Order: sequence, then C-alpha cells, then structure tokens
Amino acid sequence: MVNSIEEKILNKIDDTGELFNGVHNIRSNGESISRNTSNSISIKNKEDKSGINVVIQPNTKNRSVHVPVIISNENITDTVYNTFDVGEYADISIVAGCGIHNCSAQKTEHIGIHEIFIHKGAKAKYIEKHYAESTGKSQKAFHTKTVIDVEEDGILEMELVQIKGVDDSKKDMEVNLHKNAYLIITERIFTESDQEANSNLTINLIGEDASAQIISRTVAKDKSKQKFYFMLNGKNKSRGHIECDSIIMGNAEVTSIPALSASCEDAQLIHEAAIGKIASDQLMKLMSLGLTEEEAQETILQGFLK
Amino acid sequence: MVNSIEEKILNKIDDTGELFNGVHNIRSNGESISRNTSNSISIKNKEDKSGINVVIQPNTKNRSVHVPVIISNENITDTVYNTFDVGEYADISIVAGCGIHNCSAQKTEHIGIHEIFIHKGAKAKYIEKHYAESTGKSQKAFHTKTVIDVEEDGILEMELVQIKGVDDSKKDMEVNLHKNAYLIITERIFTESDQEANSNLTINLIGEDASAQIISRTVAKDKSKQKFYFMLNGKNKSRGHIECDSIIMGNAEVTSIPALSASCEDAQLIHEAAIGKIASDQLMKLMSLGLTEEEAQETILQGFLK
Repeated sequence: MVNSIEEKILNKIDDTGELFNGVHNIRSNGESISRNTSNSISIKNKEDKSGINVVIQPNTKNRSVHVPVIISNENITDTVYNTFDVGEYADISIVAGCGIHNCSAQKTEHIGIHEIFIHKGAKAKYIEKHYAESTGKSQKAFHTKTVIDVEEDGILEMELVQIKGVDDSKKDMEVNLHKNAYLIITERIFTESDQEANSNLTINLIGEDASAQIISRTVAKDKSKQKFYFMLNGKNKSRGHIECDSIIMGNAEVTSIPALSASCEDAQLIHEAAIGKIASDQLMKLMSLGLTEEEAQETILQGFLK
Repeated sequence: MVNSIEEKILNKIDDTGELFNGVHNIRSNGESISRNTSNSISIKNKEDKSGINVVIQPNTKNRSVHVPVIISNENITDTVYNTFDVGEYADISIVAGCGIHNCSAQKTEHIGIHEIFIHKGAKAKYIEKHYAESTGKSQKAFHTKTVIDVEEDGILEMELVQIKGVDDSKKDMEVNLHKNAYLIITERIFTESDQEANSNLTINLIGEDASAQIISRTVAKDKSKQKFYFMLNGKNKSRGHIECDSIIMGNAEVTSIPALSASCEDAQLIHEAAIGKIASDQLMKLMSLGLTEEEAQETILQGFLK
C-alpha cells in the first residue's frame, strides 16, 4: 500500500506509528492511498475539487487525525483543497505534513489550500511539517494558503516547520479570532543554498479578549532568502505579541516585517524582532569543548530551531 | 520685519532669542524676510528653484543655524527646496521648524524637500518642529521629503517633533550611512480629531560599522490616524535598533510597520514596537493625588512625549 520511498518521507513529516494506527488520510501523487476514519472523525473527498473534508464531531476529546501529503512523481503540481471542521468543545490534534521526493531535474510543486474552522470552545493543535529531498538537481516548491476561523473561546495551537530541502515556499495565512479566542503559532524555517521562503501572516483580533502569540525562529544560510510579513490587527479589546528571531549566515538575506495595527484603544499589541548571526561566544565555548566549527554551528542552530 | 503672528509662530517652533542673534534665514509665505550669515556659514538662494543652500565650512564648531518656515497666508502651497552641506569635522546644530497659522476655511500646505550632507567626521544635530494653529476650520498640511547622506565617521542626531494642529502630515526620509557613521532619530508625534500622520523612513546601513537608532513615540487621540513604516537595511557589518511606542485613545488608529532587512551576516538588527493605551494604574495614581482624569491623562501624555 505504501512503498519504501513513501514510508521514508512519512517518517520525516509524521509519527508513522500513530499515523497508521489512527484516523488518517494519506495522499500520494494526488490520490488517497490509505484512509481510516472513526465514529467521531469523518474524512470525505470533496465533490467539486481534489481534497478532503475532515469533520470532527463536537465534544470529541483527545483524538488525532493525520493527513500527510506525499509527492514522489517528478514534474507534477499537486493542488489539494482540505477543510477541517473542529466541532464545539472538541479537543484534537491535526498532523498535516507534506513531503516531496524528487530525483529528476524537473519541478515538483505542492499547492495546499486549507480552511480550518475551530468552533465554539474547541481546542485544536495543528502541526504542519514541510520536507523535501532529491538526489538530482530539481525544484521542490510548496505553496500554501490557509484561512482560519476560531470561534468564541476556541484555542488553536499551530506548529509550522519547514525542515529541509524546500527550494521555494510561499505561505499565506489569515486567521480571524473571535471573542476570547486564543491563537499561538510557533514557526521554524531553515533555508540554505538558493532556497527562498516567503511567509505572509495576517491575524485579525476581532472579538473581545481575543489574543494571539506568534513566535518565529528562522535560520538562513548560504545565498538563501527569507521574507516575513506578519500583520496583527487589533480591532477590539485584545492582546497580540509577535516575536521573530532570525540567524543569518553567509550571503543570506532576511527581511522581517511584523506590522501592528490597532483600531481600538483597548488593543495591546507588541512585537519584537531581531536579525543577527550566531553568537561568537557560544561558538567559542562549544569549540573549546572539542567540537569543530561546523559541529558547533550545527549544535547552536539545532538548539535555536528546536 | 517680523509681525506679531510670525513672532508667535516662531516662538512655537524655535528659540527666538537664539534665532535672531544667530545665523538664520526666516522664510515667511515663500519669501525670505530675514537672513544673517557668518564667515563659516553661508546661506544662498537656490538659482533654479525656491529654497536655500546652507553651507557650513569644514571644522566649524559649536555653531547653529536656524531656518524656520512660516506660512500665514491662507490657501497657499509653499514648496521649498533646502540643501544643507555640513563640511568635514564641523559640529553644528540646524533648527528647521515649520509653523502654519491659518484662520480661514482654506487649505495651507508646506512641502519641504531637503537634502542633508554630513561630510567626513562631521557632527550635526537637526531639529525639526512642526506646528499649526487656526481659529477657524481649515486644512493645514505638511509634506516633507528628506534625503540624507552621512559620510565616514559622521554623526547625525535628529529630533523630529509634530507638536499640534497638523491635519495631514506625510514624511518621507531616506538616510544612507557610510563607514562608521552614526544616526540617532527621536520622533514625537501627537494627533487628535481627524488628523492623519504618515511617516516613511528608510535607513541604509551601507558602510562597515554604520549604526542607527530610532526611537519613535506617538500619541493618537480621537479619530486620528497614524501610519509608520520604518525600514532598516543592513547591507554591511552594522547595527540598527528601532523602538516604536504608541499610545492609542478613543477611536484612533495606529499602524506600525518597522521592517528589518539584512543582507550581511554581520548585520545586527533589532526592533521593538508596542501599541497600547495609557496604563490605568498610572492614571489611578495621579487621580488619587487630586488630578482630574483629563489632567492625569495630560500629565502622562506629556511625560511620554517628552
């Protein structure tokens, strides 16, 4: 059912033990190759386009759903439309990894268009890992567009990780937070060689007492380029905090634009951003313990992105 | 030479004692109405357009030059082109206030296009205060465009203040910092009623060891709108720090976008921004000392903008 390349990729973007035993849909090269549902979580193909509707019943607690996407055919653009509907007072994890394996000189592209609805009082953890690998010289691209609505008292925790090998990533995300809704995003991005990563995130603090926290950590090596645009809109009594830290190495370029906009006197918005290189005293310390410069760098970067 | 309205306005935007006794050029309604120069500081009209060239000789120390602009005619757009050339190793203050007095229902506009050259090793303090007043309902607008070049080892300290009464202000500024040049900008902006303030600042850290610090504090009351876009470009081993704090009151809107861009691994860039309302514990404290709420607010705002 799952071949060795697929299994290898799944291991990079998900916990395969949990994946195969739990509710899941595995999409490989545009087709669903394995699906498992339960009474409380249904997964159905969309009728009008490629993709799935994942519906989590109200009050479903401590369950997870895995929806990995794998692309191993060269020269394919796989566009998928996924909708996640998390019912009232549910408490759920969604693992939406995406991996590309490409051995040719062609271009492989994943376009993911997601909608996420967190209904009243529900809590969801959304984990998205992007990974790509190739033996030859090929272009591996990820474009995602995500629209999220968190209803009253809802909680969404997002973990967005771009591990390695992604040549070109564009992420557009818009989140609407209603009354007393809470969002926390932790983002980790690593780029090297000629890779480019773009991230565009808009968070609308619409409801009273909505709050959002964004923690972004990135490393840009070699000639890679990263560009981040985060917008926090305080439209009501609300709180928002953005924190961006980037390590820049070699001839890399990082542009970080975290914008704040308040149209309510009870909105409290804060952001902090820093771009700099690896602290030389940390390097020295590790090197004095016997690590080579490369090993010391690697250790520091791993700690930073953890 | 200077009428009573002009004198009143000059008092708001400059130190008139220092102004009249020192090197100066007073521009009122598009004409130079008083000028005083010295051996080390020349002021000459531009030949091709309205405005002046201010040339400070190398090594001129502890001198100041005042170039206030006053507009008291209604329905006028006064466009002025000023160039400041600060010679090598000079140490100088430039006071470039601008005031509008308008008693009609017309629009009065000041457009200032400035070039500032800080030559090698020179140090300049540049103070720009914008103020407007009217008895009737009128539109008072300030648009400024400033291009600044700070050569090796140069230091530029800027104090940019928009005191009161300005209905519409647009500020565009670009600063190029060369080897070991240092820039510090402190900005204070106050808006109320329907006023709008836009500030666009780009700082290019071009030379090795260039450094820049921007401290912006603003208060937006009533239905006023403020928008800030600060860009710090680290193109070399350099340091930059942006700090923006805004107090929002009533139905005001503040958008703060301090962007960082690093294309050198030895660039160290940091920014911090916060938007929020007056701390209620500070208000309480002052009110418990016998101040009314309005008085307490006023006291806190004055402290914040000082």
